[in-house]
Amino acid sequence: MFLTTENLPDFEIIAGYTAKMIHTDQLTVMHVTVKAGHDLPEHQHPHEQITNIIAGEFEMTVDGVTKVCRAGDVIVIAGNKAHSGRALTDCRIIDVFNPPREDYKAKE
Amino acid sequence: MFLTTENLPDFEIIAGYTAKMIHTDQLTVMHVTVKAGHDLPEHQHPHEQITNIIAGEFEMTVDGVTKVCRAGDVIVIAGNKAHSGRALTDCRIIDVFNPPREDYKAKE
Repeated sequence: MFLTTENLPDFEIIAGYTAKMIHTDQLTVMHVTVKAGHDLPEHQHPHEQITNIIAGEFEMTVDGVTKVCRAGDVIVIAGNKAHSGRALTDCRIIDVFNPPREDYKAKE
Repeated sequence: MFLTTENLPDFEIIAGYTAKMIHTDQLTVMHVTVKAGHDLPEHQHPHEQITNIIAGEFEMTVDGVTKVCRAGDVIVIAGNKAHSGRALTDCRIIDVFNPPREDYKAKE
């Protein structure tokens, strides 16, 4: 299946975090745009997550460790690990989850 | 876990296709750079795959359908679906797999 993300609907995860969502049987991939200055409050979920920074500067905290991440940086977040973040600039991020985010599918 | 892809070893998938590999319990994410003009021969695998084009023009064929894909395009490839490709320009691609690519882990 061929998709063009700009043709997908915008999904507002939280204020300042807007995603194009791709769900399959086993995966969720989210192409996220984040506006500078917006916080991702601490949260956790059972899904394994791999966050890929495509553009911008994003300060991420995982399990109490904080790092400023930039294009080419990747954050691996095990299931049920607390994480939070803050966009220091406008950012583009690709988040990958397994299993798929049924909680987000339900809201779409 | 925080990773910087440029610090990861280069893994040559096939000629012209070089990846930085991230493997977890449930996922493989590959940050792939492809040199213009290099073909990806037709192949298939049981893993579900989501291919995210970050930069460049990549001609992808999945299950007999061919499309030129560009930044922002996403290709969803179900397990065991034949696919092939060709880099029309230098490309940057993020490939996501579930389950993880044990075949690539074994070669690293």
